[in-house]
Amino acid sequence: MARGERGVTPQSEDFSAWYNELVIKAELVERGPAKGTMIIRPYGYRIWEFIQSELDARIKETGHQNAYFPLFIPESYLRREAEHVEGFAPELAVVTHAGGKELEEPLVVRPTSETIIGEMMAKWISSYRDLPLLLNQWANIVRWELRPRMFLRTTEFLWQEGHTAHVDEDDAMRETMLALDFYTEVAQDVAAIPVVPGEKTPGERFAGAVRTYSLEAMMRDGRALQAGTSHYLGTNFAKAFDIQFTSEAGKLEFCHTTSWGMSTRMIGGVVMTHGDDKGLVLPPRIAPYQVVLVPIGRDADAERATAAARELAGRLRAAGQRPHVDERANLSPGFKFNDWEMRGVPVRLELGARELAAGTVVLALRLGEGKQTIPLETAPEQIARVLEDFQAFLFRRASEFRESMTRSVDSWAEFAEVVAVGWARAFHCGLPECEDEIKALTTATPRCIPLEGEPETGTCIRCDRPSAYGKRILFGRSY
Amino acid sequence: MARGERGVTPQSEDFSAWYNELVIKAELVERGPAKGTMIIRPYGYRIWEFIQSELDARIKETGHQNAYFPLFIPESYLRREAEHVEGFAPELAVVTHAGGKELEEPLVVRPTSETIIGEMMAKWISSYRDLPLLLNQWANIVRWELRPRMFLRTTEFLWQEGHTAHVDEDDAMRETMLALDFYTEVAQDVAAIPVVPGEKTPGERFAGAVRTYSLEAMMRDGRALQAGTSHYLGTNFAKAFDIQFTSEAGKLEFCHTTSWGMSTRMIGGVVMTHGDDKGLVLPPRIAPYQVVLVPIGRDADAERATAAARELAGRLRAAGQRPHVDERANLSPGFKFNDWEMRGVPVRLELGARELAAGTVVLALRLGEGKQTIPLETAPEQIARVLEDFQAFLFRRASEFRESMTRSVDSWAEFAEVVAVGWARAFHCGLPECEDEIKALTTATPRCIPLEGEPETGTCIRCDRPSAYGKRILFGRSY
Repeated sequence: MARGERGVTPQSEDFSAWYNELVIKAELVERGPAKGTMIIRPYGYRIWEFIQSELDARIKETGHQNAYFPLFIPESYLRREAEHVEGFAPELAVVTHAGGKELEEPLVVRPTSETIIGEMMAKWISSYRDLPLLLNQWANIVRWELRPRMFLRTTEFLWQEGHTAHVDEDDAMRETMLALDFYTEVAQDVAAIPVVPGEKTPGERFAGAVRTYSLEAMMRDGRALQAGTSHYLGTNFAKAFDIQFTSEAGKLEFCHTTSWGMSTRMIGGVVMTHGDDKGLVLPPRIAPYQVVLVPIGRDADAERATAAARELAGRLRAAGQRPHVDERANLSPGFKFNDWEMRGVPVRLELGARELAAGTVVLALRLGEGKQTIPLETAPEQIARVLEDFQAFLFRRASEFRESMTRSVDSWAEFAEVVAVGWARAFHCGLPECEDEIKALTTATPRCIPLEGEPETGTCIRCDRPSAYGKRILFGRSY
Repeated sequence: MARGERGVTPQSEDFSAWYNELVIKAELVERGPAKGTMIIRPYGYRIWEFIQSELDARIKETGHQNAYFPLFIPESYLRREAEHVEGFAPELAVVTHAGGKELEEPLVVRPTSETIIGEMMAKWISSYRDLPLLLNQWANIVRWELRPRMFLRTTEFLWQEGHTAHVDEDDAMRETMLALDFYTEVAQDVAAIPVVPGEKTPGERFAGAVRTYSLEAMMRDGRALQAGTSHYLGTNFAKAFDIQFTSEAGKLEFCHTTSWGMSTRMIGGVVMTHGDDKGLVLPPRIAPYQVVLVPIGRDADAERATAAARELAGRLRAAGQRPHVDERANLSPGFKFNDWEMRGVPVRLELGARELAAGTVVLALRLGEGKQTIPLETAPEQIARVLEDFQAFLFRRASEFRESMTRSVDSWAEFAEVVAVGWARAFHCGLPECEDEIKALTTATPRCIPLEGEPETGTCIRCDRPSAYGKRILFGRSY
């Protein structure tokens, strides 16, 4: 595989190799010793912390409370919801020995927590006055992966999982959509990833859910990444775990529950939405360093430049920005430029003797041609604007890219062509066997029934039966 | 066991029953289904979030970076450091099956992460320029517990673990003490728990450490709780995992490493440091609700009182406080007073028709006699002062309690008497077999060699041999 100038296969040549190499080279992640596990390195973890704090604020604002449930779930719990255990059984990691002995009942390492939280909800809920019960937890999750891919499919990952219980379907559905809303905000406003919120077709539903909703984001190779899901679970888990309440009318009823999650997979989404041949491109709101300052020159010049860089960094920090002065003595400015480009820092400032004498500094943006010289004096305000514009630009660019790669199609030939490189809006009959056939022929699957799609009917793109869902649905290849 | 007025065994009657019942009754925690596991409920988790954010800020300020390492550690890693595996082997939970198959090498669920982080440090460090490497992670930990106790000893708990690598012993020791310093700050300034920082005797060292330091806090039953530990690991793990660097002089050398942790056990420490017969007493800085507002009256009075309570809560919130209006319609004020007392809320405000007409509100403190009437107008400022004073009072009260329960002793008879109810400052010979004998006779162990103790010598409290350590050391029974 040919290496590009940054020591990474160019994106344009082999997207998958580009991704796998870049996430390691940029120090976001490292492969762990156990199959499919990952080490999230500080540069990657910081991105996660920004996503976390934005999401956690929204979760709390809307009345949810954080809690923590055990990692180990008795195997018998999973079996209580038939579809659920069927969906997760192949991915489970099982503890059979502990404290030097074989356990009487094996413990499953949580692949998701509906069952153990359901068991506790049954204990805590007795009256309508206890509802809604709005819980969330930040936790690690284990699902055994045979074909791991850093951030996207790993044996262990981090996420938050919301779990709520309600008096009826209406209230539970409001909650399901509320979660989808704040995921949309975090994806779009924070990570600059445009998403299509929609409902999953029955074949793509979460194991045990009545309805599953997701955000679908288009990566730069035209594939879809599911960037967050929200499930209306009906009374399925309530019945399996006996989550009942006495209604205002004094009747014993089953709760309607929901669950929803967003994970470290979002970091992979950021890489694949914005990155290019030169490496990462990070949206300022989640960039560990928004501005890197590179002092230029030798000896006394270098010292003056470094002092000026530190001073400017202090002013940027005071203005709420995240600057980093690259003081590595043994590396050339050119090496540093490339290094920070590869690591996706939005703004680079070069501080040399000539500029400093003139009271200026050179600014280079991670995307776009050329450099500009700006006055040191007003640098903080000017850079604040540049960062805001860059954030907006990334979102706009990704939206335009997605639009240019999405087409409404009405013939099978066109469908196959479009889903080979992007997304197709098409009619579908809703039959699982027809979905399976489409997948076998094109590797594309229904991504979602978009919430915002126009009401429209027609005939199935594959089998010509009348369309289901009342609108076109989105097809594409996925991660 | 007799129940007190709050439905919990009185602290004075049976401390252990009081604790076990209270943490559940106050909704801090719930027993999990797998042996020794716990569910940290929202009220308990919020306390943890406050401790977390205070600690995380200090960790970041001092140049450490957060990362995340895998939960699963190959069994062979643990075996590389002989003392380490010996110390942890009896507590390990082991995954033997995953993805439907038996694993070739069993995976240990992390009991601590020195080994897996050591393996990665070896990969990331090559030059003195890469040092110090200052990492931290927030994670769940599993140590199989035969005698679990919520928060204090559970099969799974949450913590942060710092792991750092340095060029030499000096730098690593500075780091070891730095961690102990910010733990001291968080324990004392945030959780209002006075602590004695000190070094552990060899018999109480972390498995694999050269020197272990801890914070020892005295609970209200006179026992010691270890509230945070910091270890200088020397080159033990560096040699086991080959963490080497090329020095400035061009020589290949082993790193000196450290590790340090503070856990959800702190929540138990808060309960046992401040609680009383009525229930929890929470320091304002970590109280989920600092002020509870109870509207009083019936019908129209109740409505007016509730409206006034909401309005005041809004003003308190705007002033940076955490108020909570108890609007539960089906419960009497008296029930609510007791309930919030049991749950440890520092300040209670009662809003009745008479006070509201007079533009006042009744304030009751969680400790101390009587109530006072304060003007609604200036309530936010007045309550801010009350909360600050209450925080300081709790720390002072706990410090005085500890002092009153700690004695310098020079005879065995007095020693045995003192450690039955509190702590003894005594000389010790430093011999492990003498430590063991003291433990067998009194159940007391050396808690630490206090950093601040006066230089002093004498003869061993048990065996009359000359004292070691150059000062008196602290003995007590522990959790």
